Amino acid sequence: MNRADKMMVNGKHYRTVWAEGSVVKMINQPKLPHKFEIISLNTHKETADAISTMKVRGAGAIGATAGYAIAQAAIEAQTDNKESFLQYVQDAAETVRATRPTAQNLFYAVEKVLAAVQNASSPQEAKNAAVKTAQEIADEDAESCQKIGEHGEKLIKDNSKISTHCNAGWLAFVDWGSALSPIYAAKRAGKNVFVFVDETRPRCQGARLTAWELMQEKIPHAVIADNATGHYMKNREIDLVIVGADRIAANGDIANKIGTYSSAVVAKENGIPFYVASPLTTFDLKCESGEGIPLEERSEDEVKYMFGLDEKTGESGRVLITPKDSDAKNPSFDVTPAKYITGIITPKGIVKPSAEEIKKLFS
Amino acid sequence: MNRADKMMVNGKHYRTVWAEGSVVKMINQPKLPHKFEIISLNTHKETADAISTMKVRGAGAIGATAGYAIAQAAIEAQTDNKESFLQYVQDAAETVRATRPTAQNLFYAVEKVLAAVQNASSPQEAKNAAVKTAQEIADEDAESCQKIGEHGEKLIKDNSKISTHCNAGWLAFVDWGSALSPIYAAKRAGKNVFVFVDETRPRCQGARLTAWELMQEKIPHAVIADNATGHYMKNREIDLVIVGADRIAANGDIANKIGTYSSAVVAKENGIPFYVASPLTTFDLKCESGEGIPLEERSEDEVKYMFGLDEKTGESGRVLITPKDSDAKNPSFDVTPAKYITGIITPKGIVKPSAEEIKKLFS
Repeated sequence: MNRADKMMVNGKHYRTVWAEGSVVKMINQPKLPHKFEIISLNTHKETADAISTMKVRGAGAIGATAGYAIAQAAIEAQTDNKESFLQYVQDAAETVRATRPTAQNLFYAVEKVLAAVQNASSPQEAKNAAVKTAQEIADEDAESCQKIGEHGEKLIKDNSKISTHCNAGWLAFVDWGSALSPIYAAKRAGKNVFVFVDETRPRCQGARLTAWELMQEKIPHAVIADNATGHYMKNREIDLVIVGADRIAANGDIANKIGTYSSAVVAKENGIPFYVASPLTTFDLKCESGEGIPLEERSEDEVKYMFGLDEKTGESGRVLITPKDSDAKNPSFDVTPAKYITGIITPKGIVKPSAEEIKKLFS
Repeated sequence: MNRADKMMVNGKHYRTVWAEGSVVKMINQPKLPHKFEIISLNTHKETADAISTMKVRGAGAIGATAGYAIAQAAIEAQTDNKESFLQYVQDAAETVRATRPTAQNLFYAVEKVLAAVQNASSPQEAKNAAVKTAQEIADEDAESCQKIGEHGEKLIKDNSKISTHCNAGWLAFVDWGSALSPIYAAKRAGKNVFVFVDETRPRCQGARLTAWELMQEKIPHAVIADNATGHYMKNREIDLVIVGADRIAANGDIANKIGTYSSAVVAKENGIPFYVASPLTTFDLKCESGEGIPLEERSEDEVKYMFGLDEKTGESGRVLITPKDSDAKNPSFDVTPAKYITGIITPKGIVKPSAEEIKKLFS
């Protein structure tokens, strides 16, 4: 597979996020699927804000963006005093860490770029190291996802019907994606695949982003309400489930978009293989089990309102669904215990979700 | 419990649907929760159309409305020729039967009013019998639901957290509701209850209707994405699930709103009692198991668009969520096998979902 063959939009290949000098550029994801727009972020604060407002989202894409943000901070910082330089970058790291709590890739990237900065002998050297390390994180993410595709593709038989939840595609990473990468690889290997796309309330990353990615790749799919997934599993219309992860604990428990847990339980009940696809940067070996993973709770308004395209105006709009004064709760992630997971598709192969196999993966 | 104490809107008690002479009146449910509006339907065809366009929905409310529609047809029909009179009413029955395929109450009501018409000795007598029978069906529904509340209330401990799916409240029946009736009874008995309201995509009857009903009754609740229900079950934040049913087979399998199956599977996995509340009119003893229940598939647009209040205009609006050209699938109901159901709360008490107990219920 040639990367240049990959995600093309209007005849051009795009990564989800990239750096041009001190500017971070990214696809403005809340505008999709209705408008394809690139935005430029000129400071680490703007970039951090893009993470917290979810202009970029998804484990790998958040990680790469976080790395670039720290590199931006290093570029921005005054270099005449080493201590104040370091303080500036460390403060920036704190800002970036505070954007979103669940995705492990964010913390991985922040620590990695920060370490490169701290190990440098001068501010100027630190700037160069930060830029280089941030770029390596992004490149590593793209390569890891490509390898996930190669390993995962073997699980997909011709004419498979695959369920996926949320968006763990190209847009959730730098390139290729995690859960969708095996599907793209299968398509390129000439296999027929059909994807049941969970719309993934409340933010509908499935309906908006996964469906859009599959459209670009001309892969047949149907968007379904999250409620319908179990029905198709029970009726044996789904052969295989592949989802991504935001954090994987040392014992193989995973945190992923809210709804993943229910999907896994119902898949197991129906004997349907349930795979998690993930680069190594999503593993958090310091986290013994899923109970230790912090889960983000987001605004009630994401449940009470639905955002989308107002076709009358051609602009983004929203409609209120609930009574104005009803309360809502909006947990953004849930934990799926390892016992519901058939295997984890990693760049180094497919492993069982057990402490032993995960330990081996990193040895 | 006094019915006059019940569902009050702006200081007045309303049934969901009722007849005034030859006119059927109903709460216009698609306008809720943002606007409370009563509509008048002057002919059986208008009434049938209100069922198929879901101005009225929910097992019992559909049943009562269907009964009133046949009575309207009897009132409309020419009475000078008995055969053409009967033909007119039978044609009307065909129209009403074709509106929605899943809810058993619709077929129950059509057959019952039709039988009253067919057993009458003259068209005039048939008209009177039709009107009387339709009214009896509506009254029976209200009384059954009140009894469901009395039996189901015993399952609810003080400080219970209860999950419900879709709307099986007052608005889904003539009065009281099925799944919500025990909750209303518990509230009146002085118990503290908290309700997790599944928003119930795609049409969001939970977010729109159940939340609105609970607001009227001042019952604390939170609307959640359907994806979040499993998460709260796993975390033991839900003590009990009560849902309604659109049809119950002779073996205790039930058809209910899409997503019920997944909720039941995850509840069982977590040892949480899962109850179905239903009047006897929802049972279809001719249906041996859930496999025999016809399941409605509705328009893709219900998935691709979200409907709600456009606060800018104060009018109903919709937003497009998916790519315009993505396919969607929209199964409206699923089947929950009896093995996931703890019990069925009926007007005659709580029974196990088994062929034996259900047979006893009707003997």
